[in-house]
Amino acid sequence: MDIAQLHDKVLKQDRRALARAITLVESGRADHRALASELLERLRGSGRQALRIGLSGTPGVGKSTFIESFGMTLTAKGLKVAVLAVDPSSARSGGSILGDKTRMERLSRDPNAFIRPSPSQTHLGGVARRTREAVALCEAAGFDVVLIETVGVGQSETVVAEMSDLFLLLLAPAGGDELQGVKRGIMEIADIILVNKADGDLKAAAMRTCADYSGALRLLRKRPQDPQGFPKAMTVSALQEDGLETSWGEMQALTDWRRENGHWDMRRAGQARFWFEEEVRQGLLARLHQSPAREAMESLARDVENGSTTPGKAAQRMLEEYLSR
Amino acid sequence: MDIAQLHDKVLKQDRRALARAITLVESGRADHRALASELLERLRGSGRQALRIGLSGTPGVGKSTFIESFGMTLTAKGLKVAVLAVDPSSARSGGSILGDKTRMERLSRDPNAFIRPSPSQTHLGGVARRTREAVALCEAAGFDVVLIETVGVGQSETVVAEMSDLFLLLLAPAGGDELQGVKRGIMEIADIILVNKADGDLKAAAMRTCADYSGALRLLRKRPQDPQGFPKAMTVSALQEDGLETSWGEMQALTDWRRENGHWDMRRAGQARFWFEEEVRQGLLARLHQSPAREAMESLARDVENGSTTPGKAAQRMLEEYLSR
Repeated sequence: MDIAQLHDKVLKQDRRALARAITLVESGRADHRALASELLERLRGSGRQALRIGLSGTPGVGKSTFIESFGMTLTAKGLKVAVLAVDPSSARSGGSILGDKTRMERLSRDPNAFIRPSPSQTHLGGVARRTREAVALCEAAGFDVVLIETVGVGQSETVVAEMSDLFLLLLAPAGGDELQGVKRGIMEIADIILVNKADGDLKAAAMRTCADYSGALRLLRKRPQDPQGFPKAMTVSALQEDGLETSWGEMQALTDWRRENGHWDMRRAGQARFWFEEEVRQGLLARLHQSPAREAMESLARDVENGSTTPGKAAQRMLEEYLSR
Repeated sequence: MDIAQLHDKVLKQDRRALARAITLVESGRADHRALASELLERLRGSGRQALRIGLSGTPGVGKSTFIESFGMTLTAKGLKVAVLAVDPSSARSGGSILGDKTRMERLSRDPNAFIRPSPSQTHLGGVARRTREAVALCEAAGFDVVLIETVGVGQSETVVAEMSDLFLLLLAPAGGDELQGVKRGIMEIADIILVNKADGDLKAAAMRTCADYSGALRLLRKRPQDPQGFPKAMTVSALQEDGLETSWGEMQALTDWRRENGHWDMRRAGQARFWFEEEVRQGLLARLHQSPAREAMESLARDVENGSTTPGKAAQRMLEEYLSR
């Protein structure tokens, strides 16, 4: 594979080249990893920055419809939009979010849009690290907005937040007794909560749900990276394309403020450090898992779990007997 | 130091011996660590289990008053209560939570209570690991309830939750415009939110605050370890000793349910594994920090932060050049 050529084509936003480059970073083969690393290092110099938006929502909230409507709103402004996904469950379930592009028929035909399904790996860490690199590729290819979708399985929202400039939580309206309940921890990372389906019969329920979440957000301590009024909850209707312009305006206001106040650069620098340390940690863990110490670790963990030794004593043994080398 | 003798005395709830044992586990000296590990391994067989309650609240919510009143409520029932603290800021500020026992004058004179200030280490991980061992000592000494207090600096609540059977968040009543704002992430671990100072002029405000948090809790997804109605928010008045019996009743109902449904044992086993892995991780990190690779790691992290290399490339270098051994 000619990395220099691939590099040039990605920079020119050649979509086939971009797709091939993403396939390369997703590959687990050692020689592919080396080439991918080389490509990313070369593209680093592009100096291009997209707005990276993380988006979470459970099945049924209308995520595909939202991404399509929101994406079309942006491309209509001449913005180039890439849509990626982090879904560690896709390999297991056989399906995949974004896998079925027919759910986003209009957006997938839009020349200003690029849609890529989640890499099919079962391990969240693996999916996330490769998606982060795919984001960097889309950014170097000159996309203005990169949407990173996740279904919120396990820690997936947290890792998507670690590669996003801002994070959206999409909710459906809830009746009094059938509160969907957001996952704990999501309040920690959400910048804007969008209550979708604010149309027809559900409009009133959407407004109540929005008010409930607005109230809950006010109970949380202000974060340094939030201007007055953020995080906030809003209603939208992806179906009727209602509220999308307003929510895009809020996203811009938020990111403008963060850029002006240094939070944008600080967050990006912190994220870069996070992923570096994460890659080192994973590399070290991978070695541990390939070594005989792996079995000792699991066996000691079980002893600790059933109380036949203390955590401290077991750790001491692990470090002295198996990891001293 | 005679570990066998210390072991016997701790088992007999000799308070001086317990204090000495805690000093031993808090020590950073290598020979003390070995003795502490030996002592904990011996005491493991006591089979005694206390109810470990984590408690967080910012300064001003009346935490000392609450601990005293709540502690006295328990000792009046013949229960033995130990109070420990995790406060990574105490070494820096010179002060220490629980350091000033005069704030809990009655409880500190109570023969059924044992109060111990936070170990003075600046590193949260260090404080937490030693406090976890102090909890195990109090448990072996036959205390029925171990209260672990924290001020909520950084990740301190999360680590306290990792050594607690249940977690309380203490809040003060808030007026409309002066919402104190709870730290993000705390909703994830709180089992019971107690709005204190529900007395006199503040009573109405306390009830409103309680209703606000009840509403917010209902928006969160139910956790498997929660029976119907939990987590919940309640009002108390530590000053007037009002609501303490009720809240103790709720804690008992919650823990009874968790015991009956296997969540208690599962949580303890999971926590034991967590601390084992944490001790191994810390041990490995300590080695890295004592090795020349430490400087390479920090230098590469800075390169990644300022964009002069990619996280992947830097991690590759780190693993190949510095950690290959």
